Amino acid sequence: MLLALSTWAEIEAYLKTSQTVVVPIGSNEQHGPTGLLGTDWLCPEIIAHEAHKRADKVLVAPTFNIGMAQHHLAFPGTIFLRPSTFIAAIGDWVRSLGAHGFKRIYFLNGHGGNVASIEAAFSEIYADYSFRKERAPFALKLKNWWDLAGVNALANSQFPTGHGSHATPSEIAVTQWAYPQTIKTAAYEPRIAPTGPIREALDFRARYADGRMGSDPAQATPEKGGALVDLAAKSLIEDLEAFSAEATPG
Amino acid sequence: MLLALSTWAEIEAYLKTSQTVVVPIGSNEQHGPTGLLGTDWLCPEIIAHEAHKRADKVLVAPTFNIGMAQHHLAFPGTIFLRPSTFIAAIGDWVRSLGAHGFKRIYFLNGHGGNVASIEAAFSEIYADYSFRKERAPFALKLKNWWDLAGVNALANSQFPTGHGSHATPSEIAVTQWAYPQTIKTAAYEPRIAPTGPIREALDFRARYADGRMGSDPAQATPEKGGALVDLAAKSLIEDLEAFSAEATPG
Amino acid sequence: MLLALSTWAEIEAYLKTSQTVVVPIGSNEQHGPTGLLGTDWLCPEIIAHEAHKRADKVLVAPTFNIGMAQHHLAFPGTIFLRPSTFIAAIGDWVRSLGAHGFKRIYFLNGHGGNVASIEAAFSEIYADYSFRKERAPFALKLKNWWDLAGVNALANSQFPTGHGSHATPSEIAVTQWAYPQTIKTAAYEPRIAPTGPIREALDFRARYADGRMGSDPAQATPEKGGALVDLAAKSLIEDLEAFSAEATPG
Amino acid sequence: MLLALSTWAEIEAYLKTSQTVVVPIGSNEQHGPTGLLGTDWLCPEIIAHEAHKRADKVLVAPTFNIGMAQHHLAFPGTIFLRPSTFIAAIGDWVRSLGAHGFKRIYFLNGHGGNVASIEAAFSEIYADYSFRKERAPFALKLKNWWDLAGVNALANSQFPTGHGSHATPSEIAVTQWAYPQTIKTAAYEPRIAPTGPIREALDFRARYADGRMGSDPAQATPEKGGALVDLAAKSLIEDLEAFSAEATPG
Amino acid sequence: MLLALSTWAEIEAYLKTSQTVVVPIGSNEQHGPTGLLGTDWLCPEIIAHEAHKRADKVLVAPTFNIGMAQHHLAFPGTIFLRPSTFIAAIGDWVRSLGAHGFKRIYFLNGHGGNVASIEAAFSEIYADYSFRKERAPFALKLKNWWDLAGVNALANSQFPTGHGSHATPSEIAVTQWAYPQTIKTAAYEPRIAPTGPIREALDFRARYADGRMGSDPAQATPEKGGALVDLAAKSLIEDLEAFSAEATPG
Amino acid sequence: MLLALSTWAEIEAYLKTSQTVVVPIGSNEQHGPTGLLGTDWLCPEIIAHEAHKRADKVLVAPTFNIGMAQHHLAFPGTIFLRPSTFIAAIGDWVRSLGAHGFKRIYFLNGHGGNVASIEAAFSEIYADYSFRKERAPFALKLKNWWDLAGVNALANSQFPTGHGSHATPSEIAVTQWAYPQTIKTAAYEPRIAPTGPIREALDFRARYADGRMGSDPAQATPEKGGALVDLAAKSLIEDLEAFSAEATPG
Repeated sequence: MLLALSTWAEIEAYLKTSQTVVVPIGSNEQHGPTGLLGTDWLCPEIIAHEAHKRADKVLVAPTFNIGMAQHHLAFPGTIFLRPSTFIAAIGDWVRSLGAHGFKRIYFLNGHGGNVASIEAAFSEIYADYSFRKERAPFALKLKNWWDLAGVNALANSQFPTGHGSHATPSEIAVTQWAYPQTIKTAAYEPRIAPTGPIREALDFRARYADGRMGSDPAQATPEKGGALVDLAAKSLIEDLEAFSAEATPG
Repeated sequence: MLLALSTWAEIEAYLKTSQTVVVPIGSNEQHGPTGLLGTDWLCPEIIAHEAHKRADKVLVAPTFNIGMAQHHLAFPGTIFLRPSTFIAAIGDWVRSLGAHGFKRIYFLNGHGGNVASIEAAFSEIYADYSFRKERAPFALKLKNWWDLAGVNALANSQFPTGHGSHATPSEIAVTQWAYPQTIKTAAYEPRIAPTGPIREALDFRARYADGRMGSDPAQATPEKGGALVDLAAKSLIEDLEAFSAEATPG
Repeated sequence: MLLALSTWAEIEAYLKTSQTVVVPIGSNEQHGPTGLLGTDWLCPEIIAHEAHKRADKVLVAPTFNIGMAQHHLAFPGTIFLRPSTFIAAIGDWVRSLGAHGFKRIYFLNGHGGNVASIEAAFSEIYADYSFRKERAPFALKLKNWWDLAGVNALANSQFPTGHGSHATPSEIAVTQWAYPQTIKTAAYEPRIAPTGPIREALDFRARYADGRMGSDPAQATPEKGGALVDLAAKSLIEDLEAFSAEATPG
Repeated sequence: MLLALSTWAEIEAYLKTSQTVVVPIGSNEQHGPTGLLGTDWLCPEIIAHEAHKRADKVLVAPTFNIGMAQHHLAFPGTIFLRPSTFIAAIGDWVRSLGAHGFKRIYFLNGHGGNVASIEAAFSEIYADYSFRKERAPFALKLKNWWDLAGVNALANSQFPTGHGSHATPSEIAVTQWAYPQTIKTAAYEPRIAPTGPIREALDFRARYADGRMGSDPAQATPEKGGALVDLAAKSLIEDLEAFSAEATPG
Repeated sequence: MLLALSTWAEIEAYLKTSQTVVVPIGSNEQHGPTGLLGTDWLCPEIIAHEAHKRADKVLVAPTFNIGMAQHHLAFPGTIFLRPSTFIAAIGDWVRSLGAHGFKRIYFLNGHGGNVASIEAAFSEIYADYSFRKERAPFALKLKNWWDLAGVNALANSQFPTGHGSHATPSEIAVTQWAYPQTIKTAAYEPRIAPTGPIREALDFRARYADGRMGSDPAQATPEKGGALVDLAAKSLIEDLEAFSAEATPG
Repeated sequence: MLLALSTWAEIEAYLKTSQTVVVPIGSNEQHGPTGLLGTDWLCPEIIAHEAHKRADKVLVAPTFNIGMAQHHLAFPGTIFLRPSTFIAAIGDWVRSLGAHGFKRIYFLNGHGGNVASIEAAFSEIYADYSFRKERAPFALKLKNWWDLAGVNALANSQFPTGHGSHATPSEIAVTQWAYPQTIKTAAYEPRIAPTGPIREALDFRARYADGRMGSDPAQATPEKGGALVDLAAKSLIEDLEAFSAEATPG
């Protein structure tokens, strides 16, 4: 089910059979000369919606589309939440879902830069319970879509060189598959972008002139993207089943 | 342009010709027995995307899909940000867009319950400048989609009775037009829902048993929704032109 | 009763008979060339104290005299709280009063610019209960003094043109009635001030040179103010009775 | 001048001759069986207004009437701000006044329990400048009214025993002088209240059954209050002159 | 016991016999030309550890080594927490210790500038309970090491002139006794430093050129420091016993 | 140099030759039946102080001894900061050091659970600059001590099985080397602790009965700890040199 396209009564009924929900979470940030600004929130949304098409018991929340992308701000179009804001917002999503009785909230993440803040948010939420010596009534789980079973391996086989870590051919391929009308091309120079540390926004733009890190997005194709989505959706369904089978928290 | 489906270089180019951007903003909350949980963020998204289709100079940011819906939390599926979180998040969106040079940020709103927090957010953002005796480099504008020129009048003519204020036939009609596969029906009892004050969530559910306030959503049709979207998109384009023609702030 | 001029034991006794309290809330901000900086907190204080004189069961808390007036800061003497601070402070007032057993807390407001933040504050307070699936032990109500029964109609009849929205003749008349020794005069130019949007402080001062918006305060007289206070106090007593008669929350 | 009864233009003119302002600040909290709940904000207001009557160059801001009184909350009528809220609110008052060009902001305090939070607020405000290696454009000063030159000595001579530290005869005498119609009596038992540590609210009420700490308020008279106000107002004027004569900050 | 050098099981066992813990708390800030930057956190640590050596029932938590030293920031090496951060951090320490069952948390303080923020922190923590009408499960106590029984008198007899209030010979003597290898000398000019008000950092450096306030640290010797530590440790043990003997809170 | 045992003048002189500083950062939390509660802050302190002994140009700040250990709170003695508090505190440390002219701030971390919050803190700090389109005047670096060159490899060779991820033999060996008088023994059951996910505190204690995760601390010896410290200190000096050689930020 897609939560946003359901009624409250349908969710009330769903909760009687399952207390698990997937939240696609990403970022809206530059992805090099050809990657879409929405890449990092579109990828988990695409994969989660694909999983939903295959398994209706998969309940997908609206997409959390703005994340922690401070270091990309010197490239136009990037929008980000400071970690403190991001943590507060994740907390309110979780408290809302928890109030309805969801016991397993699974964040399918599309942006490496989100990981620290999401994990911090989980700890911030749990701390309220720990300080009161109570058990949280829900379990929170973070999974990057590329860490779903088999996905990294597939991406490595598709892109043995030039995968890199930002504006990667795998994530761009996923959006190409889902939004073929938006495929863009560019003359990448150098073909494989440089790598290095991540600091703040102006430092980032000075180091990575076109926004890529270590990647050669020219290798992306819609077909490769389709294969990644296919595998990721399948693995997501399995991972959700395993998560749902865990002992009930709280 | 849709910002999320553009590259940073495309936004950089856009900024040379216009510094105006539309942010659809809404809420994910119960909308009665037949309204979609996403109604309030889908409506401004639908209208803004329709405006974009008709006028490519209209730049639409990703949709801010979770708003202030505390009073709906007793109905499953509602997700909301506390005002303090909402204000912080709007601030980060605005500061991000402002850093790129956007000078006019237009929030097209789909949820009455958001108005107070959005206006408070604007004041919070401006206050930083006022305390420093500086002029903000951007102008912020809030417009509810039903307040776009002519739209309320059309809705009143379509639904002379039973429009109400929550889970209204007009907003449901808009989503029916855009998502016809999700049209739901129910036996409304009473046909026109009661009205009264809005307090906290459990009080709200006790007063408004099925979630509606003053409305008779059975009157909604996709055709009426299409007429509303058509007019709203046209009015939005005009309103953006007028906003863009204002003297440059900052 | 005036809470500040009572003892704790008197309030303890009062609470056995009524759990309703009125909080006059306003703002300290410029009111044009002749309006007092305190106008917006003096008006609700004047009206609430007048109601108290007529009906001793009306319990009036100290006046919350600083509100959200960011847009007036470019005029000397304005003091304001950012929305985030204002929301936190209203929360602490409410939690304090709630801890004593007050079940109906009625904010009599004197400043339009406060409305968004006060409503946001109510939602922020309620959210703590909603997230815990509890019912708040109090009902919160906001009423602008000009929205008390009959008051707007009287003001419109007193000032059919040039009432405007800031530094209005009605609010200035109220303070003239209560503080006749502070009546000031000026040559207003233009007689009726311009109108337009409200943005941040320097923009506001640039648009509204002497601080007025749409108003002609020269029409104010202490007599008109007295009539407004008389009606408002009467309506306030009735509105408080209706509020107190609502079903007990919590 | 009383700021709230002035116009913005009058404050603009005042700032050309002086950049000093007094803010009466106190608390609304229980003051034993006969003390007014408003005692701690009424006392500095009474003294500052008396100073203003004698020296028109003394500019008095509206009274900051709610302070830090957590430990009194178990007595009805107490309203308080948490230190974090109080600090934020003092910051906004100071930033507002500072934006107008006030260079010396003098808080005349009426509540010992406020001291820690006010001092913390000053440091919080200054820290913004220190972290930026800038000098604050204003100097902040806190003075308890009983620490004005000679006042403690007078109180000690008026009340050689049973002055105590809360609901003291001196503060009650000051309000008796200003609000003679509110004088209350009670049979104090014991005549001089006990003393001890201050912890949280329920602990406080358990230790101090009628709210007094170490005091015998029966000794208060309006005449003694008048003498205290007379001396305090005189000392305040002198202290403000000394403060205004300090080298200009910033 | 030293908490940091114990295991959780040892603390679990300790809690069965005592629920009292000492937290040395100080500041890392300039202490004149010869005082160590760590002086203010080293002193309470030295004294608490000495008490622990003499009485194993004294449980000493890790040292809270960064406090509120905004006014010292213009001298290199100073590190401080803003009051708001400091309050939040003290809250988390207390909530952590309270969750384990500690009922008496004793902060042994080494920095006068910390007092306001620590007291504000206590009130902030208690407020959560007061607003809920609950009694806090712990009592919080603040004691400056120089206020331990007899210590100020000893310091005054050791340093009848030139003790001053910052970079005092007594605190420097304490660190000389504990860290003799770090003793530094300088030609103090003037021998006794000036005194005056404390404002923000640049103002402070302008007033107090070498960082001292009213002190003549040349009088410090390790022997005098040893005498101070000896007395302070003894008094601390007694004060902890008295605190532990108080009626159980909560 | 050890910052806390230096004077401000010594730090002022140091800053003329180097703008790099090391901050040992860890956590105070349970470490199984034999590990010290302070293990995670003692390890980086031990290593940084050892590096300082070998290379005086290494400037070591006071140890940041309380980190993010929410999940360990069900074991007595654990003290932690919520991520929001931790982020604020790291920000104040960095802003303090940055105000003195430190351009490279290197956090040597001893607790895996800190990583998310520290990275979030860096982004939070940088965001202030990014939103203002400024370059931060400092570079921030996080390094876990076990990630220093060669250290993980050495630990793996010392403990080929049963190293685990919490209460590891390597970290316990380091504290055994530095604090041999605190070595504790226990009968571990099972010898190698279980592994699994990390959620909140009560869940953690239920999964990991004695606090260990995947480890067999019985293998720790002071000698192995000494070898780890020796290598880590050497690698730290080299890593600091490389960091200091980076182009100057800001």
